[in-house]
Amino acid sequence: MEFDLSQIPAQPTFYLLASNAIQPRPIAWISTVGSDGSTNLAPFSFFTVACIAPPVLSVTLTWRRSSTGLSPEKDTLRNLRTNGECVINIVTEPLAASMNQTCGDYPPQTSEIDVLGITTMPSRQVGPPGVVASPVRFECRLRQLIPLGEGPGSSHIALLDVLHVHADDAVLSNGMVDPDKLASVGKLGGDGYATTDNRFFLPRPIIGQ
Amino acid sequence: MEFDLSQIPAQPTFYLLASNAIQPRPIAWISTVGSDGSTNLAPFSFFTVACIAPPVLSVTLTWRRSSTGLSPEKDTLRNLRTNGECVINIVTEPLAASMNQTCGDYPPQTSEIDVLGITTMPSRQVGPPGVVASPVRFECRLRQLIPLGEGPGSSHIALLDVLHVHADDAVLSNGMVDPDKLASVGKLGGDGYATTDNRFFLPRPIIGQ
Repeated sequence: MEFDLSQIPAQPTFYLLASNAIQPRPIAWISTVGSDGSTNLAPFSFFTVACIAPPVLSVTLTWRRSSTGLSPEKDTLRNLRTNGECVINIVTEPLAASMNQTCGDYPPQTSEIDVLGITTMPSRQVGPPGVVASPVRFECRLRQLIPLGEGPGSSHIALLDVLHVHADDAVLSNGMVDPDKLASVGKLGGDGYATTDNRFFLPRPIIGQ
Repeated sequence: MEFDLSQIPAQPTFYLLASNAIQPRPIAWISTVGSDGSTNLAPFSFFTVACIAPPVLSVTLTWRRSSTGLSPEKDTLRNLRTNGECVINIVTEPLAASMNQTCGDYPPQTSEIDVLGITTMPSRQVGPPGVVASPVRFECRLRQLIPLGEGPGSSHIALLDVLHVHADDAVLSNGMVDPDKLASVGKLGGDGYATTDNRFFLPRPIIGQ
């Protein structure tokens, strides 16, 4: 089947094409703090590495899909605009159900952390707290917001400078995060998720000189 | 363990932290054409959705890690600068071994497609060909290159406007890509990959008004 995007409204077709085919996606479970001090915690799966040196991560913050009449600008984006700080908490299998609960359309003044009883702790270099049960946490400061489009379907790419990384000893081998010890979870299309327990290894080919 | 990135050189520490903890990652297997007409095919796993309307994908092109004396600017980046077009071929389980072979440091004038005997076909709206065995292919035109850093560890974020999407009938249900029919493969840290056959589903919570 062919989808000529100059002939089809991008939304919802492209959302379905992209979210169903570009998978599995890593999940950034982002904690922020609002101007009134309220904490926010929400998951995003349009998330990747933007640069190694300087260390930068990238998260796409899309227009809120909501039927509740709430602002289309997600709390995470508003809080990042306000103070520029966040923690990206990595999601593992034991955290998946709790993470999914934070997808709910809570009003801005309601803290998912408080409502759901998620245990947090202070971060080292930023204001927002980290999720204690998340074994790897990236403390970040907003570097740049890149707006794309306007209205429904539009987004902001948040480029985030990484200041500090916490990794639980339980997921380390030889002083580094060991992917075999992380029960990482990936996001699929729709309501789907995938575990990473069915692994295989392909060594990079060596090409003769 | 705590990693204060203001006190540690970002490379290689941050590369290992990010690639081992931010997983599983979707794989963009990108075909491009050089100024001499030679085709190039290479995989990238720092890849995500940047916007729905307009439809934009994002791929991070890092400095080449090579001991072969080749240019640190990857062929994909050079070709995108030249003519601005590419095809992102989605990688499934049957394609993983072939995809991995294209990680090799071939010289720029060598086509991975020719050397490895990968069957391609013309695209609808861009010059680079698509990989026939890839069930979903995004035909893209370069929208913007965002440089980050300089030298080793630096990168370019390529924002790519999606013009056209092909999806094989075999992976469709009701006219849309069905994530359950795609045997998607995710990239883990190191040489690791994960299948997506161990799936679970978490419906989004409904919050009372």
